[in-house]
Amino acid sequence: MASCGLRFTLLIVNAEIVAVGSELLTPFRQDTNSLFLTRRLNELGVEVIFKTIVGDRPEHLLEASRRALSRAQIVVFSGGLGPTEDDLTRECVAQALGLELRRNHEMVTALYTRAAAMRIRMAENNVKQADYISGAELLKNPRGSAPGQWLDTSYEGQRRLVILLPGPPFELEGMFNEHCFERLKLALPEAHIATCELKIAMVGESTADQRAAVIYKQFPDVETTILAKQGEVQFHLKARGATQMEAEALVDKLSSLLEDEFADEIFSSGGESIEQIVGYFLQMRGATLSVAESCTSGLLAERITSVAGSSRYFMGGALVYSDQLKREFCGVPPLLLASDGAVSRSVAAALAEGIRQRCKTTLGIGITGIAGPGGGSEEKPVGLVFVALADGKHTEVVERRFPGDRERIRWFASQLALDLLRRKLR
Amino acid sequence: MASCGLRFTLLIVNAEIVAVGSELLTPFRQDTNSLFLTRRLNELGVEVIFKTIVGDRPEHLLEASRRALSRAQIVVFSGGLGPTEDDLTRECVAQALGLELRRNHEMVTALYTRAAAMRIRMAENNVKQADYISGAELLKNPRGSAPGQWLDTSYEGQRRLVILLPGPPFELEGMFNEHCFERLKLALPEAHIATCELKIAMVGESTADQRAAVIYKQFPDVETTILAKQGEVQFHLKARGATQMEAEALVDKLSSLLEDEFADEIFSSGGESIEQIVGYFLQMRGATLSVAESCTSGLLAERITSVAGSSRYFMGGALVYSDQLKREFCGVPPLLLASDGAVSRSVAAALAEGIRQRCKTTLGIGITGIAGPGGGSEEKPVGLVFVALADGKHTEVVERRFPGDRERIRWFASQLALDLLRRKLR
Repeated sequence: MASCGLRFTLLIVNAEIVAVGSELLTPFRQDTNSLFLTRRLNELGVEVIFKTIVGDRPEHLLEASRRALSRAQIVVFSGGLGPTEDDLTRECVAQALGLELRRNHEMVTALYTRAAAMRIRMAENNVKQADYISGAELLKNPRGSAPGQWLDTSYEGQRRLVILLPGPPFELEGMFNEHCFERLKLALPEAHIATCELKIAMVGESTADQRAAVIYKQFPDVETTILAKQGEVQFHLKARGATQMEAEALVDKLSSLLEDEFADEIFSSGGESIEQIVGYFLQMRGATLSVAESCTSGLLAERITSVAGSSRYFMGGALVYSDQLKREFCGVPPLLLASDGAVSRSVAAALAEGIRQRCKTTLGIGITGIAGPGGGSEEKPVGLVFVALADGKHTEVVERRFPGDRERIRWFASQLALDLLRRKLR
Repeated sequence: MASCGLRFTLLIVNAEIVAVGSELLTPFRQDTNSLFLTRRLNELGVEVIFKTIVGDRPEHLLEASRRALSRAQIVVFSGGLGPTEDDLTRECVAQALGLELRRNHEMVTALYTRAAAMRIRMAENNVKQADYISGAELLKNPRGSAPGQWLDTSYEGQRRLVILLPGPPFELEGMFNEHCFERLKLALPEAHIATCELKIAMVGESTADQRAAVIYKQFPDVETTILAKQGEVQFHLKARGATQMEAEALVDKLSSLLEDEFADEIFSSGGESIEQIVGYFLQMRGATLSVAESCTSGLLAERITSVAGSSRYFMGGALVYSDQLKREFCGVPPLLLASDGAVSRSVAAALAEGIRQRCKTTLGIGITGIAGPGGGSEEKPVGLVFVALADGKHTEVVERRFPGDRERIRWFASQLALDLLRRKLR
């Protein structure tokens, strides 16, 4: 591998990610490659300090290239490496660096061979994919036609690592993992980084943060990121150390204190989803499950069966949107529906036990609620949800009132059901 | 409103969006405000030429501000307007422009009043939210505490419109709609822009593009964007004209040609989802629906009931993950399951007609298939799906083999069911 003789002088190396493509400047599409790239760069101790999104116009691409090269030590470009007239990343980065483009004749042959194998006649302009910036290595792309490039060079007297990757995520991720990660590791100062991810369910973000802050503030050397989405809060911990052991000890200490604080609520410390955890527990206990869903109408079952192999513990159930089907499939007594209403503690319990018996499963879940926007009343407002869990001996019913719109209320109801199952089974 | 006396000289005004916040440079979070801002700016004829994402460090923020001001006519900043030490957008933009920060005393009072109403004691540093860049107007934020700013100024002799908005999407969108859109419209050259969005189902992106390209290439003045996601292809058309009528005539001409070409496949030209369209048709025909889902296990029902008011036409159905429940809930004959297997044309038909009768609905849908990753065989590979639609007289069954992973196969199966319903009902 070429090395330009300059060394990185900072302890923490920084990077800029430049996403190229006019479609990324429309209201319809967004650069997502940078999330993958950031994760992998962070693993190497590299900090991303800027992200730039730029279209296909050469004057803009040249400006973005110069700017990135002037302010970051590693510059990763994604997109604009294809065969069309709009694909100008190669040309503009070369111009920014004041380097020439050369043609790799082996690659030209490879492009013609690839086209022949696919029984297509290659258009003349495809050949430009074999052009590389003087001094760069071409990176093979078994998933597409455009190769990437790796260049260890300098800009205005500073060492720069420049990486050109194709835009399609599938091609970019494969190429980065296979050709760039190890190369970067060798080129960078050694970094010892430990990470940990804790997930908790059904606790609000501000409550979680309040309870956690008392703890994580004692660890200023651990970077703690709190991420909340849809009834789940994640703590992402990251620490650097002089050795790997030191970094891991630091993260372990904080994570075990957080696990004590959230003993009841933490469902995963290894990245698993709550659907997976519930699946593990059901299998571990040799238990089976059926569901009767009214307001969520399939969302809970869909989430449970998103896990491969769920047919081992999930049998099925009923979508009981209408009252008629609550009677028909779960044997909910008509009198109960008339006296308490379809959205009630007693009907939730009858759904859970009814579906359990009907499907001959160990456990049964019943969900009924008002997802809105219509159908609410003063007594039973939009957002009111009852979730019941029956095991044949006992039926537990939880009542909640969720804020937000239809989608959010339904999601929270399914999340509550999964968390009930988790607590029951753990 | 202040005006600096300079005019925009280009016909098409351009913009840069700068998203501020260190969390936007992690692998966990992404700037999404720019999609909203781009959509609204495009409506005014403004083209977004760069997007920059920068953290909270003042030297980086200052650099990003200077760069944006040097290369775009409108610069919109989002985030970094709050009360904490990390909120430095005001300070850095002022410094980049060489302008002073002033304090608005009315706003100071308003901040104290707001805190008092919420029964909290305001921390001293909150007051800095009342600071504005000399010459800027403060924009009220009824959804949060940090006001925005609007500044019509110049940078290196060029007119610049500078807008500072708070980061939370809810606050940013409200503030832009209420305070910025009309101000921009007045400040910009008049633009006449027409748009149209056509959606088609169950046609691959490359097939759709091939068939459409013959048509849209005859309209170089209409910007055509093709967007594909999960069994749906969207054509977004946009044209400018000397008058609004001219722009609309241009878009109409292209869209009607595309509607002719895709007469069978287009399900929406007004932005509606396929779930909404199926709902309209069911209501229009006074029909009711039930479903029996095996491999999709609730996904179809969940999608149908994501539409508010779907209880008028959707009754419910059964989740028949196990063979036992296929018999129990839909009366599928045990012999049929034994001879043809659960994933077969005949079982799909039996599920559809069985659930229709059981739920006493006009129409019944049955879905069975192999979502994988396990469970496939040479004869019945992963991705094989049968969808049946029964109306009591006739049962139509469609067989498909979908590529991709479990999630994708299940999604396509539900999409195929919705498209079958649409074709039946239209």
